[in-house]
Amino acid sequence: MREKLRSFLEDARVINAIMAVIIFNAVLLGMETSPAIMARFGTLIYALDIACLSVFVAELLAKIVAYRGRFFRDGWNIFDFVIVATSLVPAAQGFTALRALRILRVLRLLSTAPRLRRVVEGFISALPGMGSVFLLMALIFYIGAVIATKLFAGTFPEWFGTLARSGYSLFQIMTLESWSMGIVRPVMEIYPLAWLFFIPFIMVTTFAVVNLLVGLIVNSMQDAHHEEENAETGAYRDDMTARLEGIEQKLAALLAQRDVE
Amino acid sequence: MREKLRSFLEDARVINAIMAVIIFNAVLLGMETSPAIMARFGTLIYALDIACLSVFVAELLAKIVAYRGRFFRDGWNIFDFVIVATSLVPAAQGFTALRALRILRVLRLLSTAPRLRRVVEGFISALPGMGSVFLLMALIFYIGAVIATKLFAGTFPEWFGTLARSGYSLFQIMTLESWSMGIVRPVMEIYPLAWLFFIPFIMVTTFAVVNLLVGLIVNSMQDAHHEEENAETGAYRDDMTARLEGIEQKLAALLAQRDVE
Amino acid sequence: MREKLRSFLEDARVINAIMAVIIFNAVLLGMETSPAIMARFGTLIYALDIACLSVFVAELLAKIVAYRGRFFRDGWNIFDFVIVATSLVPAAQGFTALRALRILRVLRLLSTAPRLRRVVEGFISALPGMGSVFLLMALIFYIGAVIATKLFAGTFPEWFGTLARSGYSLFQIMTLESWSMGIVRPVMEIYPLAWLFFIPFIMVTTFAVVNLLVGLIVNSMQDAHHEEENAETGAYRDDMTARLEGIEQKLAALLAQRDVE
Amino acid sequence: MREKLRSFLEDARVINAIMAVIIFNAVLLGMETSPAIMARFGTLIYALDIACLSVFVAELLAKIVAYRGRFFRDGWNIFDFVIVATSLVPAAQGFTALRALRILRVLRLLSTAPRLRRVVEGFISALPGMGSVFLLMALIFYIGAVIATKLFAGTFPEWFGTLARSGYSLFQIMTLESWSMGIVRPVMEIYPLAWLFFIPFIMVTTFAVVNLLVGLIVNSMQDAHHEEENAETGAYRDDMTARLEGIEQKLAALLAQRDVE
Repeated sequence: MREKLRSFLEDARVINAIMAVIIFNAVLLGMETSPAIMARFGTLIYALDIACLSVFVAELLAKIVAYRGRFFRDGWNIFDFVIVATSLVPAAQGFTALRALRILRVLRLLSTAPRLRRVVEGFISALPGMGSVFLLMALIFYIGAVIATKLFAGTFPEWFGTLARSGYSLFQIMTLESWSMGIVRPVMEIYPLAWLFFIPFIMVTTFAVVNLLVGLIVNSMQDAHHEEENAETGAYRDDMTARLEGIEQKLAALLAQRDVE
Repeated sequence: MREKLRSFLEDARVINAIMAVIIFNAVLLGMETSPAIMARFGTLIYALDIACLSVFVAELLAKIVAYRGRFFRDGWNIFDFVIVATSLVPAAQGFTALRALRILRVLRLLSTAPRLRRVVEGFISALPGMGSVFLLMALIFYIGAVIATKLFAGTFPEWFGTLARSGYSLFQIMTLESWSMGIVRPVMEIYPLAWLFFIPFIMVTTFAVVNLLVGLIVNSMQDAHHEEENAETGAYRDDMTARLEGIEQKLAALLAQRDVE
Repeated sequence: MREKLRSFLEDARVINAIMAVIIFNAVLLGMETSPAIMARFGTLIYALDIACLSVFVAELLAKIVAYRGRFFRDGWNIFDFVIVATSLVPAAQGFTALRALRILRVLRLLSTAPRLRRVVEGFISALPGMGSVFLLMALIFYIGAVIATKLFAGTFPEWFGTLARSGYSLFQIMTLESWSMGIVRPVMEIYPLAWLFFIPFIMVTTFAVVNLLVGLIVNSMQDAHHEEENAETGAYRDDMTARLEGIEQKLAALLAQRDVE
Repeated sequence: MREKLRSFLEDARVINAIMAVIIFNAVLLGMETSPAIMARFGTLIYALDIACLSVFVAELLAKIVAYRGRFFRDGWNIFDFVIVATSLVPAAQGFTALRALRILRVLRLLSTAPRLRRVVEGFISALPGMGSVFLLMALIFYIGAVIATKLFAGTFPEWFGTLARSGYSLFQIMTLESWSMGIVRPVMEIYPLAWLFFIPFIMVTTFAVVNLLVGLIVNSMQDAHHEEENAETGAYRDDMTARLEGIEQKLAALLAQRDVE
């Protein structure tokens, strides 16, 4: 019976139906943002939303029954489980922020639609190669935040009052948004040498980001290069080696015959 | 007779003449933006503009007569047809916006000038490979817009009042324009944890854009690599294989002769 | 005697001396920007500046004498000639702007220092491949400027009053500087659908810039790949072909001998 | 005994302990930014900070004893030495700025953690290839700063009053931050042709940055390509050459035998 359930869950029509429910739910949650629509159809939309959630819960339970222990070995299943579970938390107790997160349910499309799934898996596979550079960036940000807080906390508490605020401001500066007109020029009016801190910071972080980008390009290019090239080149090289071996054997046979004579 | 018309339309001199009319029309439409010029030469410019349009209509009709059904099988012909057709809509009835779009006629240069045509075709050929990432971006934007609207519609109606406004604001944030000083800092004054939404949004969309870029580079590099390399390498490999086959046959002949002896 | 002059001008010590004069002149022109320094050493600095210019004129005349007609066949010589010639124009007649351009003399370093020369030649060699995309960009900007002027000239004369102003504003929008907070949001308060023009404009121009970048990377990578790879691969392939030809001939000789027997 | 000291210093557990001290010190210095924490635990934190510094000094002295002259031949050792030495300068004499720099001690993590070390070495190895372009950028900035100061010092002293201010403003313009709304539009209100200076400046510097990026990508791709490809291809080619030489010798032997007959 679990075999049957499994093949039912893996049926393309069932997967498409689930995707349709996800998209329908996304539209519902989009309509919830409009007060005009909610005033007229609010109760209906809430009811349909609960219906959609029930479908997700039912699907997930069916999957757990069908795959048992193997269910939690697939990252995508855990992803689905967490998303549906958070939707079940009674979020109505004053936390409208948590209610807003119900839209994250739509992220289930990532695990259901194969094309999106592949894109996300591609993204994730790029992450480990970026680990060291991220660690370095974290270090630079921490050092930068400590320096900025120590130097400017007194005069610019809004931007550099605490470590967290300095970190946020440095992130803004790294994205180059209003870094000069908005932040560094006002700071330089009081500390004229402040550019000695900010301009190297911009250069180092930008350079690190560029190196991240270059690393990503080089990696994915090599992967692509490897896969494609080696199919054809490998076949050609094996063919060449086999032919030369044949020739060597024939020549050896010729030489051997002659020695016999 | 249709044969003659076709060879006339494909004549380099005719194509150059059409291009000259397009450029002349572009200059006319540029002059229309100057009130000083229009005050003195307005009637003349309008008359010349109609003359240009007539040339386009005549060319298009001639092409339809010459190619019949095949005319609409070429994407560039449909492009020309749509552009000229929209120019014929009587746009003078109050819609100055539609009148402004007459300049789009100049886009016909894209279909007429071979170099521009190739660039545009290169652009279009890059689009399918970007499909999945675009789908993912659309999903992220939709989810982001719903969350932002739910959370901030009440306090920041101008930026996040409706789904459409939130989408526009998130697009602005993705381009990093005034994201912090202009939007996130004011929002954080009321919702201090708003950065938990905006900074991940910036990171995810930027990372997606970077991956799009990396994908484009890798793809077009592989295409280029493929085309160029395979011409020479393929020839070399075929030559090697042919030579070795010849050597094998000669050796086989030698061995056969010897067995006969 | 012209032989001697030529070898004198191509002597490494002479070239280094000229570079030293250029750098010295650059320092002089930098000091001219300081009123305090000019108040004390103004006359001396002007005198030294004229001395530097005299050296440049003398060098150029010597080169023209030494190379005659060939002088003007080298792009770098023409570059030097134009720069020195503009410096000789009596710029003191009220045009302080032209006086400021004397610093362009320092650009002569580009033609004199071999490393900088190679970088600039690398830049220039990348330009032709970008021609078509630049043409396309010019077309998009012209169309965009005409549309923006027609639609917004009346209400936003400062930004879109004339074709030139629209072109400048669109360039600013393409660089993403204050595009939304500074320009598009104010415009959208009067024309709520203005984003239908600006967002596609941003997307198309950004995409064109990205394609330019991708094209540059692919081109220079292929050049690099080609140069390096072909040296070694070509040698290997020639060796392989030569060896196989040798083997074929020996086998043919073996077969021929046997036929004779 | 120096042998023993050396093997102790290179022991993985000792290196990990030093890393732990660095991280602990980083946390201490982070806590120093919080007035609330300092009010309660200030003395303790200062004491622990001095303890950490003592560990660093002891480690460094041990290394100098262990490696003697060789110590200063490794760039990373000099890096550590400079960082610890600056921490020892009595910075309490009014220079709070210098006190803030104590956090730079955390940079020792770069020399201690192998993964970060490799990333930084990768960054540094990319620098020489960028030398010429950096030289060119410096030249462009110097020329731009001189022109901007000469032209705009009188009317915009805050932005272009001195060479240094012009350089800073041009750096801001190169990063595209508020270049138009913040600087060029106000300047153009007085000098309508100022865009003739700023827009080419933006284009040239952006193009130079793009070329830097392209160069970086091409270089690191070639390195990667080289390393990986040559291992396999080289082995294959050596094998092919060796086999063909064997065949040639066998054929030569056959021909020689036959001539003897």
